[in-house]
Amino acid sequence: MTFIAALEEAWQRNNSLLCVGLDPDPAKFPAHLQGRQDSMFNFCKAIVDATADTVCCFKPQIAYFAAQSAEGALERLIEHIHDAHPGIPVILDAKRGDIGSTAEQYAQEAFVRYGADAVTVNPYMGRDSVDPYLAYADKGVILLCRTSNPGGSDLQFLDVGGEKLYERVARLVAGEWNSNGQCALVVGATFPGEIARVREIVGDMPLLVPGIGAQGGDIEATLNAGKTASGTGLMINSSRAILYAGKGEDFAVAARKAAIETRDAINRHR
Amino acid sequence: MTFIAALEEAWQRNNSLLCVGLDPDPAKFPAHLQGRQDSMFNFCKAIVDATADTVCCFKPQIAYFAAQSAEGALERLIEHIHDAHPGIPVILDAKRGDIGSTAEQYAQEAFVRYGADAVTVNPYMGRDSVDPYLAYADKGVILLCRTSNPGGSDLQFLDVGGEKLYERVARLVAGEWNSNGQCALVVGATFPGEIARVREIVGDMPLLVPGIGAQGGDIEATLNAGKTASGTGLMINSSRAILYAGKGEDFAVAARKAAIETRDAINRHR
Repeated sequence: MTFIAALEEAWQRNNSLLCVGLDPDPAKFPAHLQGRQDSMFNFCKAIVDATADTVCCFKPQIAYFAAQSAEGALERLIEHIHDAHPGIPVILDAKRGDIGSTAEQYAQEAFVRYGADAVTVNPYMGRDSVDPYLAYADKGVILLCRTSNPGGSDLQFLDVGGEKLYERVARLVAGEWNSNGQCALVVGATFPGEIARVREIVGDMPLLVPGIGAQGGDIEATLNAGKTASGTGLMINSSRAILYAGKGEDFAVAARKAAIETRDAINRHR
Repeated sequence: MTFIAALEEAWQRNNSLLCVGLDPDPAKFPAHLQGRQDSMFNFCKAIVDATADTVCCFKPQIAYFAAQSAEGALERLIEHIHDAHPGIPVILDAKRGDIGSTAEQYAQEAFVRYGADAVTVNPYMGRDSVDPYLAYADKGVILLCRTSNPGGSDLQFLDVGGEKLYERVARLVAGEWNSNGQCALVVGATFPGEIARVREIVGDMPLLVPGIGAQGGDIEATLNAGKTASGTGLMINSSRAILYAGKGEDFAVAARKAAIETRDAINRHR
């Protein structure tokens, strides 16, 4: 099954647009996991098992694993998600971007070594830097478009002949790079007006939306701007607000509660 | 010593602007190394030891190591370069780019885990995505500006109000992001006119120039466009043409010969 098809099934089966981001920071782990061997894997596994029926996908952030020399934990985590929770796609958040021969290596890292169902990719180096990912026809390729951080405007908001750079990226991906129907875009929740603009450009293409916490600040505006006619089309990411909802031994219970609250806050506006 | 100071010393001491890129592809290794344990490390170590006095820096490409689950080999390789060839800076070619909290993890990966002296970074997400690298004041931060691949023009060549996007990146880095004097830029050798334009914008800032092979195609044009008044300012990268110059047991001897020829071809135009 392709990434996009698996995502569509997960939206329906779990009645959820929530993506739980797995950004494991040992400094924030509950005390009973601090300094324990394999805590990177065990922390993430507990979060995954507690929330898998409340999400449409999981998104491990490779930087957190790489900084801790924990590539092995990441391999086992993705394998565990696929084994224990079949049908929940895994997005490897890596934001890679390089020339074709090197991009082939990164695609092998994401799709072969880690077995991810989709990967995030930076568009700055253009089409041929994305082709090696697109060559894996059943995998998802999620291009950065409009990011939620303050500096996102430095380049993405520049006017490039009557439209903003992020709009051009959306048009390039929707019009030229997505010939196999496997692409999605990252559009931050910080600017609902820009989610709406991207939605106009890309039709029903899935959008990965970071920048929302359990507090539910911009959820209504994000849904109104980004949902498709069928009330889906979005992977709304929450990481820290769910991972660190509790600080005790019951952290996974607290994470499940936060995930359900976020899922329900989203569903009220679908 | 800072990355930039070490680079300037290496330019002088080795009388070389050559950067040897370490992109180890096991499929291209000599037969006697094929399938041997630790061949990733041993291949790169042989190249490094044969060429260290002919270069101004080494540039391992992390994608090749990650695709082979060879992070340990990369750690040991960088440690070996620092131990056996002190004063030769190591650029980790990773082209990372992410929001601040994640960029902190990537900076830790590059500078703490791997001990690299500089790292390549993608500018698409703007200033705050680069700050965590800049916080390591003695390290080099090398921003993608104008890449040498065909798709490089898809975004980098867009007009953003009277200048191209890559020119805007050069101006942002030189004028705002380089307050600590630790930045450099990636500018491909494919377009000497654009190297000259970047040089105009950034003064004496070092440029990392990929896209040249042992064949020496554009070396004269690159030097004329990019060298500074002192005949330096460039890290001219060659990877495959040096790594795979020989296919037999004497591959390191062939690599040394190719490196010397490339260094000398560069020096004829300084």
